[in-house]
Amino acid sequence: MSLDGYIAGSDVTPRQPMGVGGERLHEWIFKGKTHIDGKILEEVVSSSGAVIVGGRTYAIAIDDAWGGASPFSMPAFVVTNQNPEKAISGFTYVPEGVTAALDKAKEVAGEKNIWLMGGASIAQSFIKAGLVDEIHIHIIPVLLCCGTLLFEQIGMKPIELERVKMEESSGATHIWFRVVR
Amino acid sequence: MSLDGYIAGSDVTPRQPMGVGGERLHEWIFKGKTHIDGKILEEVVSSSGAVIVGGRTYAIAIDDAWGGASPFSMPAFVVTNQNPEKAISGFTYVPEGVTAALDKAKEVAGEKNIWLMGGASIAQSFIKAGLVDEIHIHIIPVLLCCGTLLFEQIGMKPIELERVKMEESSGATHIWFRVVR
Repeated sequence: MSLDGYIAGSDVTPRQPMGVGGERLHEWIFKGKTHIDGKILEEVVSSSGAVIVGGRTYAIAIDDAWGGASPFSMPAFVVTNQNPEKAISGFTYVPEGVTAALDKAKEVAGEKNIWLMGGASIAQSFIKAGLVDEIHIHIIPVLLCCGTLLFEQIGMKPIELERVKMEESSGATHIWFRVVR
Repeated sequence: MSLDGYIAGSDVTPRQPMGVGGERLHEWIFKGKTHIDGKILEEVVSSSGAVIVGGRTYAIAIDDAWGGASPFSMPAFVVTNQNPEKAISGFTYVPEGVTAALDKAKEVAGEKNIWLMGGASIAQSFIKAGLVDEIHIHIIPVLLCCGTLLFEQIGMKPIELERVKMEESSGATHIWFRVVR
């Protein structure tokens, strides 16, 4: 997330999945990855038993960014009410909504976490439904100005958090929050 | 700033200058202030030779929150095109806009910083005009959901930052950024 809250630039398309200028937000993952960043990314994968992806993110990413195959080393659940033209191995399509997707993900994740990968809209739906336990934010030192806000629509009342961990790398400030209930 | 980018809740009025739920964002300054927070607040004051305030913030705060007098230990410049009914000692009213306010502030600040206190609208005007050197953010562990976004209107192109310092207290995550030109 940029300091001003964006997780993608404007005009997200399959050819430009991060939107205008949005690649800046992933530099810490790719060209500027440090040892700390790598460890954090590996922990997401090793601690998770299933991943949930929004329908729009899936549709934008699947052909180009993901090259037509699942990029995940774990079962992935896509919350979508449009059945894809062809089902792809590694993905389960869930038309019944966020709670159903979470239930299905829990069945396979065992004791491990469910990784809610994004995009913003599905993250907001999960937050609104009170289904999020932790928020791991990677703040990138840029004001992106325009694009998709991570927390644009999260309901009408404040949600208290607790900071549980923080790490700095040269490309990002990583902060882990727990949702206080 | 809340994690979702708000610096005040909705419905800001003189009687409720932080808006609905907005007091939460100032708990680290008042009821939950730690030694680290105190040091950071003191540094803002000791390093600054002048402060700039937006006209709306002034109008909201002056009678109730500030009790009719300047709360600042340094000259304060109010960017406003409405001359106040009565001038108050310690304040200079600048109708000519942000650049004029900055010039006047520089005259009295000497080698010290100019502290751009807020609100959001004046901060955005200064950012848009390329007049901001550093952004000191205090991230409060809450999703406020509603209110005034700090970075809502900062122009149409990204602004690169560099994180120069970070400190954690129990109530806030303090991050200092430098604007990269």
